[in-house]
Amino acid sequence: MTEHRPPHPRIPAALISLGLALIGCPGPRQPGPVSPTRVTHTVVPAPVSIRANQGEPFRLDSMTSIVTTNVAEVARTGQMLAALLRPATGFPIPVITDTTRPGAIALRLNTSATGEAYELSVTRDSIRISGTASGIFRGVQTLRQLMPPSIESDMRVNGPWVVPAVTIVDQPRFAWRGSMLDVARHFFTVDEVKQFIDLLALYKLNVLHLHLADDQGWRIEIKSRPRLAELGGVTQVGGGPGGFYTQAEYADIVRYAQERYIAIVPEIDMPGHTNAALVAHPELSCSRVPPALYTRTEVGWSAFCPNKEETYALIDDVIRELAALTPGRYIHIGGDEVEVLTHEDYIKFVERVQDIVVRHGKEVVGWEEIGKARLRPTTLAQLWKSDSAVLALRSGAKLIMSPAPKAYLDMKYTPTTELGLTWAAIIEVSDVYNWDPATYQAGVTESNIVGVEGPIWSETLRNITAVQYLAVPRLPALAEVGWTPQSARAWDDFRVRIAAHAPRWNYLGVNYYRSPQVPW
Amino acid sequence: MTEHRPPHPRIPAALISLGLALIGCPGPRQPGPVSPTRVTHTVVPAPVSIRANQGEPFRLDSMTSIVTTNVAEVARTGQMLAALLRPATGFPIPVITDTTRPGAIALRLNTSATGEAYELSVTRDSIRISGTASGIFRGVQTLRQLMPPSIESDMRVNGPWVVPAVTIVDQPRFAWRGSMLDVARHFFTVDEVKQFIDLLALYKLNVLHLHLADDQGWRIEIKSRPRLAELGGVTQVGGGPGGFYTQAEYADIVRYAQERYIAIVPEIDMPGHTNAALVAHPELSCSRVPPALYTRTEVGWSAFCPNKEETYALIDDVIRELAALTPGRYIHIGGDEVEVLTHEDYIKFVERVQDIVVRHGKEVVGWEEIGKARLRPTTLAQLWKSDSAVLALRSGAKLIMSPAPKAYLDMKYTPTTELGLTWAAIIEVSDVYNWDPATYQAGVTESNIVGVEGPIWSETLRNITAVQYLAVPRLPALAEVGWTPQSARAWDDFRVRIAAHAPRWNYLGVNYYRSPQVPW
Repeated sequence: MTEHRPPHPRIPAALISLGLALIGCPGPRQPGPVSPTRVTHTVVPAPVSIRANQGEPFRLDSMTSIVTTNVAEVARTGQMLAALLRPATGFPIPVITDTTRPGAIALRLNTSATGEAYELSVTRDSIRISGTASGIFRGVQTLRQLMPPSIESDMRVNGPWVVPAVTIVDQPRFAWRGSMLDVARHFFTVDEVKQFIDLLALYKLNVLHLHLADDQGWRIEIKSRPRLAELGGVTQVGGGPGGFYTQAEYADIVRYAQERYIAIVPEIDMPGHTNAALVAHPELSCSRVPPALYTRTEVGWSAFCPNKEETYALIDDVIRELAALTPGRYIHIGGDEVEVLTHEDYIKFVERVQDIVVRHGKEVVGWEEIGKARLRPTTLAQLWKSDSAVLALRSGAKLIMSPAPKAYLDMKYTPTTELGLTWAAIIEVSDVYNWDPATYQAGVTESNIVGVEGPIWSETLRNITAVQYLAVPRLPALAEVGWTPQSARAWDDFRVRIAAHAPRWNYLGVNYYRSPQVPW
Repeated sequence: MTEHRPPHPRIPAALISLGLALIGCPGPRQPGPVSPTRVTHTVVPAPVSIRANQGEPFRLDSMTSIVTTNVAEVARTGQMLAALLRPATGFPIPVITDTTRPGAIALRLNTSATGEAYELSVTRDSIRISGTASGIFRGVQTLRQLMPPSIESDMRVNGPWVVPAVTIVDQPRFAWRGSMLDVARHFFTVDEVKQFIDLLALYKLNVLHLHLADDQGWRIEIKSRPRLAELGGVTQVGGGPGGFYTQAEYADIVRYAQERYIAIVPEIDMPGHTNAALVAHPELSCSRVPPALYTRTEVGWSAFCPNKEETYALIDDVIRELAALTPGRYIHIGGDEVEVLTHEDYIKFVERVQDIVVRHGKEVVGWEEIGKARLRPTTLAQLWKSDSAVLALRSGAKLIMSPAPKAYLDMKYTPTTELGLTWAAIIEVSDVYNWDPATYQAGVTESNIVGVEGPIWSETLRNITAVQYLAVPRLPALAEVGWTPQSARAWDDFRVRIAAHAPRWNYLGVNYYRSPQVPW
């Protein structure tokens, strides 16, 4: 398995320690250069630079092959590209790990590239993608979007399979570009989570934060504490059967994400949002009343008892097993919406759990309330409501920007659309698009930010088709917020580009909201 | 488990033997009676009779309870209704198996009712559903559709929860109302199949025909022949990983369907469409060339060797295990599109396999080509292209009507919609609706027909969201063809009713095609 472990989970760390300088952020509100070789395209997120090359476009045909650098990771990306191209085209598309061989499509590791940077060059005779291993994967997504939507068909369809002659130089604005799926309030199958990962990959996102435990359900097997999943995983909002991932299933999800250069960030929300854990371990509650399974949606009322050593013993077991399952750098400890503990008890709890995570070799992410505690500078606080996020900066911690009125993708599109909630805002596609993470919050500048994340809480979402209805096209919009330089983004341009993605979603079996803001 | 076995799978048999007279078919093209108490509603399929009652509508409130006849099946339907009503309303909705107790909603077994007949009566003070056990379940679907679409929400939303005061007397036109899901060309998870069953249940369909084996994949564990699934189930169209159902998983699907009075009809397509089986058992081929896994979509080229005893030994093992997994009466043996056997060999094969099925206590369904053989009068032939279907009538066999230009729900809606095929027709929603099974085919009258079925072949469909795009709203249209008397059906009425279902699909997480024929 060694060759299947991409270096990606270390990339955010490197970028963060370099203050994001490496990824060439142009800063907010610089006027966008109007290039004389401006190219009409439908790539989302928009690349940093794209210009037309002289001459004819490239045409895939039955002789097309892929050659890659002879490094297992790059060869794997080549195989994934071939698997993507074969069904619709019907071409054999052999993959050869020898870049000295002639081949129409070449994937080449560029050892001087950093982060997720890549270059893509298309001429009549060849397609060249070079970059870091993750950058090559991102570049393949760009190539995919330069082809007709019918390339996504799983059955052979008619071409021609033309790729316009362009040169693209590209890299992300932010090192952290994610979404959060709440698998606690409704459970989603491994297959559904993989479908969600596929969507993230298509839009160059690199973090899937899984909200694995909340009042309604505990969704991950902990071998040293089997009651957590066995007793805490049996229901969900609405009273359905719930479920949990075995460690083997969870490892399969992690591996599937890794192959797409997406880090899984597991969250165990605590000390609040812990009713399902307390059903399994009532001894960790401060109350003598044994908790009951819960299938409704109020928040703030459950908590681990912060003054019992058993609490920390259980957390240590959970974090140890989660750390072993997590090749990435981060574990998310929640920390939000605790209404039943004192300020002092809350701080003590967060600081102690932070130590546990670090002892197991990982760094902490928490919702912004953890900013009240003393954080390590390597801890990340996730801004969602803004009032406590700035506190986290005192210790040098950085922020993930998930302001609810812009980035909570479980809010309704309009007051009358069926799924989603309304407590934070009504969020149409343009609302997700039209903000700058670097200027959103007073006291927070670009250097304080590692990136953006769009949480999807699942109170109203019983399956992945419902999740997609809320995620598409808002998650692609957020992906562009996270990837594309602020100066290169424009709503009137985005709405036209994203409209062209609808046929692609249909081929892929992805549901979406037919927003009237988009010229479908 | 005994009490969980509904009598449904025996109903089609009873109805068939009575020549469908019992279900009161009014015959084709009789003018529809225009009732003075005509009620505006959005129920699909439209009931046989619906009239307005005097007085106020019924309002669900926190005191509403359900009482049912003290029979396990009926009590289970009561629990399913309560589970449907609780999340959106937040009301406790207790279920009491004692119809002498007062209770707002009563489900009562009517021992003189037959088939799937039910009556539903709503007044200000009560809702009464009576009928056969299956009829009560169908009546619950009608009640569900009389309530606001937000009743489908899995999280509490605002009411009021009003049901109009009506009396409905209802029963299906045809005893067989089904859909076929091709899990062979693309594999669908157990969870996805259950989502499809949910859709069938909402529209009162009672048969799910699972196409379990084809050239691209073998999808059911056969314990005496483990190679079939282990070697034959590993891929699918487009080259994805495929999969198969263990017998435990398959039994779970059967049970889930049974609880909704839906019979699973398993199909092993043979002697053609057998490449996946031949990969596992190359000794059953007439050719010496060992077959290879196949991920494309041509048909007609593979076949079991009809002159080898090993062929029938394997079929006997497969049918024996399938029969043990099937509480329903029918097993589907395929029989279509065999282009590599002689006429005589084909007939010999079909007749011998028919005997095997009967020896294991089941009756045969086959695609219409089996009409060339000597069929038993209890065998059913499935009309799809019409030219050989009428042959089946010679022996007294009856037909399932699935004419491809009307009922093949995997055909495209328009030439430019992304998913689906075009070889039989382009099929908009109105095309599925506007035909009469009893007059469609020369030489076939209503007495020759057991019902209708909408096959969904999965060449282009990689997940259930894609299946739903083709199935909705066409499958509800076909459900009305199968349920509602011909004289009571009208496209201009249907298109308005089905438009009101879109919010319901959104709540349920069901994708659908936004047909321009429907006033959404």
